[in-house]
This record gives sequence, C-alpha cells and structure tokens, in this order.
Amino acid sequence: MSYDALREECLQANLDLPDTGLVDLTFGNVSVADPEARVFAIKPSGVDYKALKASDMVILDFEGKVIEGGLRPSSDTPTHRCLYLHFEGIRSVVHTHSRSAVAFAQSGVDLPCLGTTHCDYFHGAVPVTRDMTPDEIGGEYEWETGMVIVERFKALDPTEVPAVLVRNHGPFAWGPSGKKAVENALALEIVADMAIKTMSIRPNAPPAPQHLLNKHFFRKHGPGAYYGQK
Amino acid sequence: MSYDALREECLQANLDLPDTGLVDLTFGNVSVADPEARVFAIKPSGVDYKALKASDMVILDFEGKVIEGGLRPSSDTPTHRCLYLHFEGIRSVVHTHSRSAVAFAQSGVDLPCLGTTHCDYFHGAVPVTRDMTPDEIGGEYEWETGMVIVERFKALDPTEVPAVLVRNHGPFAWGPSGKKAVENALALEIVADMAIKTMSIRPNAPPAPQHLLNKHFFRKHGPGAYYGQK
Amino acid sequence: MSYDALREECLQANLDLPDTGLVDLTFGNVSVADPEARVFAIKPSGVDYKALKASDMVILDFEGKVIEGGLRPSSDTPTHRCLYLHFEGIRSVVHTHSRSAVAFAQSGVDLPCLGTTHCDYFHGAVPVTRDMTPDEIGGEYEWETGMVIVERFKALDPTEVPAVLVRNHGPFAWGPSGKKAVENALALEIVADMAIKTMSIRPNAPPAPQHLLNKHFFRKHGPGAYYGQK
Amino acid sequence: MSYDALREECLQANLDLPDTGLVDLTFGNVSVADPEARVFAIKPSGVDYKALKASDMVILDFEGKVIEGGLRPSSDTPTHRCLYLHFEGIRSVVHTHSRSAVAFAQSGVDLPCLGTTHCDYFHGAVPVTRDMTPDEIGGEYEWETGMVIVERFKALDPTEVPAVLVRNHGPFAWGPSGKKAVENALALEIVADMAIKTMSIRPNAPPAPQHLLNKHFFRKHGPGAYYGQK
Repeated sequence: MSYDALREECLQANLDLPDTGLVDLTFGNVSVADPEARVFAIKPSGVDYKALKASDMVILDFEGKVIEGGLRPSSDTPTHRCLYLHFEGIRSVVHTHSRSAVAFAQSGVDLPCLGTTHCDYFHGAVPVTRDMTPDEIGGEYEWETGMVIVERFKALDPTEVPAVLVRNHGPFAWGPSGKKAVENALALEIVADMAIKTMSIRPNAPPAPQHLLNKHFFRKHGPGAYYGQK
Repeated sequence: MSYDALREECLQANLDLPDTGLVDLTFGNVSVADPEARVFAIKPSGVDYKALKASDMVILDFEGKVIEGGLRPSSDTPTHRCLYLHFEGIRSVVHTHSRSAVAFAQSGVDLPCLGTTHCDYFHGAVPVTRDMTPDEIGGEYEWETGMVIVERFKALDPTEVPAVLVRNHGPFAWGPSGKKAVENALALEIVADMAIKTMSIRPNAPPAPQHLLNKHFFRKHGPGAYYGQK
Repeated sequence: MSYDALREECLQANLDLPDTGLVDLTFGNVSVADPEARVFAIKPSGVDYKALKASDMVILDFEGKVIEGGLRPSSDTPTHRCLYLHFEGIRSVVHTHSRSAVAFAQSGVDLPCLGTTHCDYFHGAVPVTRDMTPDEIGGEYEWETGMVIVERFKALDPTEVPAVLVRNHGPFAWGPSGKKAVENALALEIVADMAIKTMSIRPNAPPAPQHLLNKHFFRKHGPGAYYGQK
Repeated sequence: MSYDALREECLQANLDLPDTGLVDLTFGNVSVADPEARVFAIKPSGVDYKALKASDMVILDFEGKVIEGGLRPSSDTPTHRCLYLHFEGIRSVVHTHSRSAVAFAQSGVDLPCLGTTHCDYFHGAVPVTRDMTPDEIGGEYEWETGMVIVERFKALDPTEVPAVLVRNHGPFAWGPSGKKAVENALALEIVADMAIKTMSIRPNAPPAPQHLLNKHFFRKHGPGAYYGQK
C-alpha cells in the first residue's frame, strides 16, 4: 500500500469524525496502518478538521519513528502504535471524546449490552480500563494508555469487541479500515446514548440474553453472516 | 397497484427515515404492501440511504418469495411479512432503532401514555413484547420476531396502537401508507423522548386519564374525527 | 389593522415554529389578534408548515365565527379565543408540544424558576393547570381548556407570566405580537430543558431568590427596564 | 491595538456564539480588551446576532466610560469590566446561558473534573459563586456580579481555571483572545454535558485522580506543553 493511499484513507476517516458529530473542537484522531509494511498514517496534533489536507498526515513506522511529514503527529500516537503492535487484524484506530461514551469512561462502569443495536457491533459489554498508576501517568503516558487497554483485553478478542473505554478519559475504537473503525466509534456512541436513556427508565435494566447477543453478532460477522449484500 | 408505484412509495418512505433523524447508520427499513395482490416492496439489506434507488427495492410475495429485484432484501423481511399476514388493514411497516423508543424496548417497560401527544397517535400504552426463547432465536428468528408481536397484540387493535417495542431490540410501526407508517414511527420516538423527560422529573408520573385519551385519539381517528382538513 | 396584515403576521409566526425547533410534525399553531376589531387570524388545522401560505390563515371574530378563509381553523381555536376574551393586553397566542415543556405538563409539576434565564421571561414559576373533568373533556373541550387556564391565572398576571402548561397536554404562551409570543414559547422550552438538567444534578434545587427574580424580570420589563436598545 | 481591530475581533467572537450552539435567542455576549490601552469592545445589548456589524461594537475604557459607539453596551458590561480589572492576563470575556453549564449554576454544585476532556481546559472543578445578597442585587448588580466572581477566585488562578458559574445565573469564561475565550466557553458546556451524563450513570462518580489532572492540563498548557504544533 502506497503512503499516498494511507494518507488519503487516513484523511477521509478523520474528516468523517466531525461529519458524524463524534468530535467537538479537535478532540479526536484516526490512524490507518499498513500492517505488512509496519507503518501507519495519523492526524497531526491539534489541527482544525476544516484545514486538514492529506499531505498533513504523518507517516510513522511501528517503532514510532516519523517516516514522512512536516507536522507533529497526534499526542496520542503511542497509544495507536501500541494497539497495532498487540491487536492482530486491525488496520485503523479511532480516538474520540464522544460524549455518551465518555460518560461511561468517566463513571468507570462497563457499557452493558442492553439490546440488538449493541449486539450488532460488540459481542458483549464494552469494557472500561483500570485506573492508571501515578508511575504510568508520569512515565510514557500515551504508551502506557495503550498497555492498560491491552491488559484489559487479555481475556477478550479485539475483533469481537472492537472498542474500549479508557478510565476517566474516553473511547478508542478500531477496525479493518478507516471507514469501519469510524463506524465502530459511531456505533459505540449510539449504544452508549441508548444505554444512558435505558438506565434512566430502569436503572438496573438487565443485559440482553446471551443467545440474542450471539444471534445478532454472528448474523453480521463471521462465516455465517447473512446481513448486507454478498 | 403497479410494482413501480410500490417501489417508488417504498423508496420515498425509506428516504424519510434519515431525513427525520429516526435512523443512524443503516439501522432501519420500510416496506410497502399491496395487500390485494399479496406482494410488498422492501429496502435491500445494509445499503446506504444516500445510494438508494427505486430499482433497488425488492418485491416479494406474501409467502416470502422474491418476485423482482437483484439485491438481498432486508434481513428483517420475514418480520414485515408476518405482520402483513396477521394485521388486517396495514399497508406499510417501518422498523427503526430510534434511540428513545429503543430505550423503552431495552428497559422492558411499556411506553406509558402520559399526555395528548401520545393520545393523538396511540390509543394507550405502546407495549413491549416478551423475551424470545432460545428456540425462537435459534430458529426462524425474524419470522418469530413477527410472531411475538402478533402474540402481544392478541388483545390489542393494531390500527388503534400502530406500533410495538420488541424486547431488547427496538420499535416496529405501521400504517395505511408508507408516509403514515413513518409518521407513526416518528411520533413514537417523540413521545418516548417526552416520556423519558417526564419520568426524569417525576419517576411515577401517572398516565393521562382515560377520557382524555379517548377524546384525543377519536378527535383525530375514526368517524367522529374533526382534526385536519376534510 | 387589515386582515392581510393579520394573516401575514400570523403566517410569519407560524413559520417560526419549525425554524426554532419548537414543533415536530404539525403539533403547533399560532394566532394573532386585533383586539380592538375583536378578530384574530389562526393557522388552519393539520396543514404542513412547508405548504403554508398567508391566504390559508383563517380569520375569525371573538365570538368564534369564521369571517374569511376556506380552510378549517386549528382544532385548538376555541382555546385561543378564550384567552383573547379573558387576558387583556395579549395579541398573540402560541400552542406547541415542545418536548421539555410537555414533560412538565405531563409530570404535573409547575416549572420552577431556577435561574435568571427564567427570570428574564417569567416572573415566577410557570404553572400547570388542574386535571379537566370528564364533563369538561366530553363537552366543549377546547373552550374548557381555555377556561382551566383562566382559572389557573386567577391570582397571576398573564403579562408577568406569559405561558402556562396544560396538564397532560402541553404549553400555551402569549405576547404582544406574533414574534414575541413565539419568543416566549421558545424561552419556555429552553428554561424547561435547563430545569430538567438542573434537577438531574440536584433533584430539589431551590428556586432563585425572590430579589434576583425581581431584578432580572424588571431589568427587561416595565418602566425601569434597561436591557436592549431604546 | 486599533479600535477597528478590537471591534473586528469582538464581532468575530460574538458571531462564533450562535455558530457553536452556545447561545439561544440573544443570551450571550463577548468582549475583547486591549489591557495596555485599558479599553475594551463589547456587544451592544439585545441585538440579534444575525444583524451584528463590527461598527455596532461599543468601545469603553476600563472605568466604564463609552469611548466610541452609538448603541447601548451589553447590560453585563460592568461584569466584564470588573474581570479585566482583577484578572491579570485575560484579554477576552464571554458570557453565555449555555444549557448544561447553566444547570450546574442553577443547582449550585461545582462542576467536578471527571475526566481528561475537563483536565485539558480547566485545572480542577469549575466553581459556583455564592448567593448574592439583596443589597448586592439591589445596588450595582452587574458590577457586584463581577465582585463575587473575584471573591470566589481568591484561592484560584484564573489562567488555570478560565471559567466560573454564577449562582442561579450561568457561565462566564475568559482567555487570551476572543477565539480562545469562546473555545473555553464551549469546552465548559461540553464537559458540563458530559458530567450530567456521567452523574446519570453513577451519581457520585469520583473526580479524575490529581496526577491525571496535572498530566493533561500541563500537556496542553505552560512551558512543558507538547500538544498541538510548535
């Protein structure tokens, strides 16, 4: 995959963020990787979405070295890199501060799977990471953020639950393409909003039954999927 | 009614969904039937609303056989078909994941009739269906979804309560035309939103009195209606 | 004031409703009166805002007789007429089903004055009317709706509290012009939304102190006003 | 700095208010100061944003005397002036009635720092001022409003917490430019909205740990900042 193609896919995915209402101000970034070449493109830090061009995207290798690009990469770059190194099969990472997902991250409560909208995208609750230690925060903070995500997924499959809520911070989502990763981030915000509304009607609403969860997730994902066009 | 007319009415009603804010991503579909000819048109599965054309609509008969159309019909097609077979007098079915209606479906709480906005559209609470059994989910899931709706309406008139909330899933609404069915789906979302707000002010707000409900419903529906133009 | 001028002011005020987000579907109407000539113009019943023309406005006298216009007037016409007959100094009445105001009407809880946004428009809580009796609902329902409003204002000055919440129904607002009446209806919805949010943070948040209420209301209203341009 | 430049920066910042959704109706105003020349420009009172021109901005000196401008300055002018006199290093003040921030002001609850979105802008909770006394309200009300803000910041650094919530009223925010002050006002509304959602999931959600707060605030502010472009 050429760097130009990476930059272009990365730009488009970043531009989708304000269009979907997922980001306020400049609170968000997308990266897109070429895992075989072990490189990824990422949004530059603190640049307004309205002014973003493909040539602004920064190309780094999986060791964190800038390969091409004149701007500083997003301050969250080490988190993205950490996920590419640990989660096989993902090609794009999205970070936003979308409001309802942030609310779960701030409350420290896993986002429960309450219905089929959730089941269609996430095979179970979307987990919150543990508190980071003062050492982790004082050290390589953004890398360590990635490491607490990896730790939280020890018993989870990142292709079945393609998102996480970083404690007191906000969501990261991922997927097989920039477009899919942004779609997962948007689905996460939608189901978080639905969950808040559900809990306002019935605070301890039970999660959707396991067989309903399996049915909906595997109706859309994996070899038995029959949703969408062939 | 020609298939072209069915497809066109079906397309327009589907396009109304994103315009009214009722659907996120591709979470929704409308079908429109010709009950005398026992056929209906429905949205294809997983296609973006922006790209939808009349010729994409799939025509099926009431036995579920595709009559015309090169795309896969919506995965929810058997639910629509089940409702056409059991609910006399309906010509269009709408399914959405609109957020406030979903919240009631996820909480398992019937949407209470709290005021005249609700009374104008639904003659009483909008019911939630029972949990589906593992067998129902593992079998002809989408058809069985229709059957639990039909079961829930044993003592209800679907022309007086033109919507339902499928447990842990979301709303289905219907009506005498594509336009009216979408209007019912929108009214449902609006009154669900109002109910959530009402319950946040006063958790056990009592329903509107029965005589107010009757007054408003029959002011707009049936032989004594005097709302709107002749 | 000519009937043409009345119709034009009435049309503009009605068109402001969807523009401000105050109405969904066709849930709202505005009338504008010429109190000296004892006539008023009002929106026709159930007509889509997008299709509304000045010539569609119906002119009635204060006894309820249609003077000019080929369409049915709004079904709420007798409520408007009742307010013109009982509330001196008002020239326009607005009825909406705006969602947060409806939530208070449905909960039966007076909208408390929690801060200066409220004080700027309403000199105290916006009251909810009592339940209507089966006889009132079964009789001249829309006229009786006006009468329970008038009853609720026995000890209130309608120019100091230019809005009311009809129980299990929704808001009516009024003012010295179509534009001002719609502004009051919008301010009502805004402060209702703020109140719901406030009560979610602190369920029994006390009302704003009386001297703050007086200060803000009379900073904008009456002989000592100093807000805005001369 | 020329008066024309002040007026232009002031106009642009005022126009940003409705564009960001921070203000309803005419509930908001921005001033921009030239602290060395001890003058500031401010929005005229009660003028519609749509009609606002640079030449409408009123120029006053720090003693409150109008230097240039044919319109009445905002009724909140003495509050702005008070902040310029007491808070060193600020060049612009914004006042809005943005809804979620108002909800905290109305509830009398300090806006807690629950996550990194908040930490990025405010180094700790955003405080609510005390109730004003009848004498303060009956006297130079708008100036006294400034004085209770100054009192509340006795132990706080206004450059580390660039916003306040005036009790039963609403937010004031400030910054080194019109653009930055509006950004702070917008960030305040966003984190207030996130906090309301968080508290609805978990009413007593604890604040973000102090080391996380320090990390995020100083990642963006001060000599060690590494966010954004150089």
